[in-house]
Amino acid sequence: MTSKKKFIAVIGGSEPSAEEAQMAEKVGRELAKRGAILVCGGLGGVMEAACRGAQSEGGLTIGILPGESRQAANPYIQIPIVTGMGYARNVAVVKSAQAVIAIGGSYGTLSEISHALQSGIPVIGLNTWSLSRNGQPDNSIIPAQNSVEAVDKALNLATKE
Amino acid sequence: MTSKKKFIAVIGGSEPSAEEAQMAEKVGRELAKRGAILVCGGLGGVMEAACRGAQSEGGLTIGILPGESRQAANPYIQIPIVTGMGYARNVAVVKSAQAVIAIGGSYGTLSEISHALQSGIPVIGLNTWSLSRNGQPDNSIIPAQNSVEAVDKALNLATKE
Amino acid sequence: MTSKKKFIAVIGGSEPSAEEAQMAEKVGRELAKRGAILVCGGLGGVMEAACRGAQSEGGLTIGILPGESRQAANPYIQIPIVTGMGYARNVAVVKSAQAVIAIGGSYGTLSEISHALQSGIPVIGLNTWSLSRNGQPDNSIIPAQNSVEAVDKALNLATKE
Amino acid sequence: MTSKKKFIAVIGGSEPSAEEAQMAEKVGRELAKRGAILVCGGLGGVMEAACRGAQSEGGLTIGILPGESRQAANPYIQIPIVTGMGYARNVAVVKSAQAVIAIGGSYGTLSEISHALQSGIPVIGLNTWSLSRNGQPDNSIIPAQNSVEAVDKALNLATKE
Repeated sequence: MTSKKKFIAVIGGSEPSAEEAQMAEKVGRELAKRGAILVCGGLGGVMEAACRGAQSEGGLTIGILPGESRQAANPYIQIPIVTGMGYARNVAVVKSAQAVIAIGGSYGTLSEISHALQSGIPVIGLNTWSLSRNGQPDNSIIPAQNSVEAVDKALNLATKE
Repeated sequence: MTSKKKFIAVIGGSEPSAEEAQMAEKVGRELAKRGAILVCGGLGGVMEAACRGAQSEGGLTIGILPGESRQAANPYIQIPIVTGMGYARNVAVVKSAQAVIAIGGSYGTLSEISHALQSGIPVIGLNTWSLSRNGQPDNSIIPAQNSVEAVDKALNLATKE
Repeated sequence: MTSKKKFIAVIGGSEPSAEEAQMAEKVGRELAKRGAILVCGGLGGVMEAACRGAQSEGGLTIGILPGESRQAANPYIQIPIVTGMGYARNVAVVKSAQAVIAIGGSYGTLSEISHALQSGIPVIGLNTWSLSRNGQPDNSIIPAQNSVEAVDKALNLATKE
Repeated sequence: MTSKKKFIAVIGGSEPSAEEAQMAEKVGRELAKRGAILVCGGLGGVMEAACRGAQSEGGLTIGILPGESRQAANPYIQIPIVTGMGYARNVAVVKSAQAVIAIGGSYGTLSEISHALQSGIPVIGLNTWSLSRNGQPDNSIIPAQNSVEAVDKALNLATKE
C-alpha cells in the first residue's frame, strides 16, 4: 500500500542556478530509488528538476498547485492537486510531507520552511536560507553537503505520522 | 504516466445510509476497473466506502484532508494530502477532479457540488441534492440511476484538462 | 466597542437583476440603520449594492476578497481583507458572520449558503436557491418576503458568538 | 471613508518577552494616533498587546483568526475575521496590509514575514528574525530601533494599493 511509503517534500525556487537544478534532480532520483514519494508545489525550476529525477527512477510525484488548472503542472507531475488558493497552498505542500528538503529558493521557499518548522516537520537545507532570531543563530534547518546526504537525513528524520 | 489517467472525485457524507455506502463502494470499484484515480476528502462514510472499493480493484486513492494529521485518513487512502485548512479544502477536492460523483451527503457535500459547478466541472448525482434557483429547477447535477451509470457519465463528461 | 455589534453577511451574484440589486441596497441600508456590520465578498453586483446602501446610512462594510489586490474591492468597501485564496475565501465570508442574507446568486452563492449551513450559521433567503435532498425538501434556508423582513430575521437569529 | 486610511499589520509571537509586549503596545498606540488601521492574527501575545495599545487611542483593530470561532479573538479585536483555515490565514494577515511590523516572533511570524516579502509588502523588524540566503545576508527586513521608528517607516513605506 502506497501509504506506508514516506512522503518527502522538495521545495525551492522556480529559477534555480544550474547547480541547484542538478542537486534537485539528484534528490528526486535518490528519493525514488529509496521508495519515497515526492511532494512539491508542482511548478518549474527546482520542483520540475526534482520530479524529472524521480520519474527517471520510476518514482511517484505529487504537485500541489497554486492556480486553477492542472495544465500548470510541470510535465513530470503524476498527481496534480489543484487548490486555486495561491500561496496558501504552501502550507499544504509541507504538511503533506514527513520531512522537507529545501534547495536554494526565495521568499516562497522561506515561507514553506517556516510553515514546516512551525508544524514540527524536519527541514534539510541545501544551499538555502539560514536564520537568526533576535541576533541568535537558529539552527533548525539541518544542513546537508550534497543530495545523497540530504535524502539520507530526510528519510531518517521523517516524522512517524 | 499516471497523469494521463482520469481523476474523478467521489463526495458524500460521513454518515451514509447502507444503500449509499454500497453505492459508494461500487463506484470506487468501477472507477478502479476503468483505470481512473479516485479523489476524495479522505475521511469516513462515503469517502471510505469508495476508497475501499477502489483499493479492492487495485485503484489509486487520494484523500485531501481538512485537519493537521495524515492519521485522520481512512485506511484505504494511499495518497494523503494534509491541508490544515478545514472546509476550505472542499475547494481543492473538486478542483483536483475532472468530474465529480456525489452520493447522498449533507451541506459539506452541497458545498463541494457548488464549487464544482462554479468551476465548470461536471457533477453526477446518486441520491443526492437537487436544486431550484428562484423557483426554477436547476438541472446542472446530472442524475444517475446506479453506480455503473454514474461512473460511465463521469468518465464521458470528464473535462479535458 | 465595535465587536459588540452584529456581523451579518450579504451574499449574492455579481450580475443581479434590477430587483435583486434594489433588494440588496435596501438590505444594506437597513443593516446600517440597526447598527450591524456588513460582511461580503467585496466585489460587484449584490455585494456592491448592499455596501452602497450600508454606506449611505453610515454603516461599516467589510469585503473579504478572493484575489491579490485591494483595488478589486467595490468603492463602498471600507475594510478590504485580501486573501489571495480564490473561492476558498467564501468559507471566511460566511464564518465571519453571525447570520447570512442570500439574494439571488449563482453557484458561488450556493457554496456560501452550504458552508454557512454546515457551520450552523442561519441563512435568510431573498429570491435565492431552494434545496431538496434525495427528493425531500430541505427548508434550512429561511425565506423572507422583502429586505426589511430579511434583516429582521437575520438580526433575530444571529448566533451569539 | 475608512478605506483611505492605511492598513498596517503587526505580527509576532503569542509568548513575547516583556520588552516585546511593551514595544507592541506602543506600536499599536502610535498606529492609532496616526490614523492607521491595525491588522493582526487576532490572538494573544504581541497581537493582543498591539491591539490594546491601538484601542487605548481609539484605533480600529482587525483580527484574522485561524480557528472556527470569533470567541478566540483577544478582547481588543473590534473586527474579527473567522477563516477556519489554520495557518493558511497567515497569508491573508499580511496581504491585507500595506506594510508589516514584525516584533520578535517564532516560525509563524517568519512565515508571515516570508509571505509579505514574496508579495512585495514592506516588512519592518523590531527584535525579530534576520536572514541569510545561501551564505549572503538578505536585508529585506528593514530594522527599526524602537516602536516610533517602526511606525514611521511602516507608514512611509506602505504600498499605495
